[in-house]
Amino acid sequence: MATTQILSSDDLLKHWQGHRNLTRRTIEAFPEDKLFKYSIGGMRSFAELVYEFLGMCVPGATGIATGQWTAWADAKEVHTKKELLALWDHATEELNRIWPTIPGNRFAEVDTAFGQWPGTCTSFVFYFIDNEIHHRGQGFVYLRSLGIEPPAFWDRQGL
Amino acid sequence: MATTQILSSDDLLKHWQGHRNLTRRTIEAFPEDKLFKYSIGGMRSFAELVYEFLGMCVPGATGIATGQWTAWADAKEVHTKKELLALWDHATEELNRIWPTIPGNRFAEVDTAFGQWPGTCTSFVFYFIDNEIHHRGQGFVYLRSLGIEPPAFWDRQGL
Repeated sequence: MATTQILSSDDLLKHWQGHRNLTRRTIEAFPEDKLFKYSIGGMRSFAELVYEFLGMCVPGATGIATGQWTAWADAKEVHTKKELLALWDHATEELNRIWPTIPGNRFAEVDTAFGQWPGTCTSFVFYFIDNEIHHRGQGFVYLRSLGIEPPAFWDRQGL
Repeated sequence: MATTQILSSDDLLKHWQGHRNLTRRTIEAFPEDKLFKYSIGGMRSFAELVYEFLGMCVPGATGIATGQWTAWADAKEVHTKKELLALWDHATEELNRIWPTIPGNRFAEVDTAFGQWPGTCTSFVFYFIDNEIHHRGQGFVYLRSLGIEPPAFWDRQGL
């Protein structure tokens, strides 16, 4: 069988925002103090993992759209769940705004994300999404170990 | 901007097998007894999560290729890491064998995976991959809590 095109850039944005929607509900599920302080096995707190997701989201989409990569940095630190959710929601809107400005030919282009990681722009987006799924799964363990039921993994606005 | 096709069925197989390669190395990182017995917060052992991945992999690819879905069931239980890795390697070969038999038009078709979950065949594959990333991330927490360094998340044969 010849290979078939199976995913469009619109599909990919929907997939990403679907996962981001689940991550938002995971942030909400944490008690305020545990969000910033709790971890297992010397790992980062869930808030620190969320800073990483935010550091990839708008800066990553901007780099893909423009070819201009800012130096890698996590999102700024905040001190309350409300502030973290506000950063999240702002990134959601920004991602929706930036995405349609990405030239179609950019997805297959090879670039160096944040001046450090070579690959196609499509591979960068999958890395951002997969990294978020991976670390959000770790957040689910934090919640379970605290006796808190996480949101359902399958319940998201995805593909 | 008009939407752009950004991913082919060949890319998707490569992406999936890249993640499966990382999962294999995660299985290898577990001490034998911990693989089958250890968990946090009342969750399943990593071996039990791996049965779930295996239950989605070849049965899922077969359903997509043929439209024939077997009833949902996890993979059979085994008792050693060696046996689990052998199941894994067999699934790797089977997935590579089945994938090229999937008719190109199947990816966009709507079906009901395992007679239970409606969606496009492409969405099923992403669900299988994302579920594996999610639970493998949990396995990473198990390893960290045991003082064991997991394999590097970024180190895989992916896109």
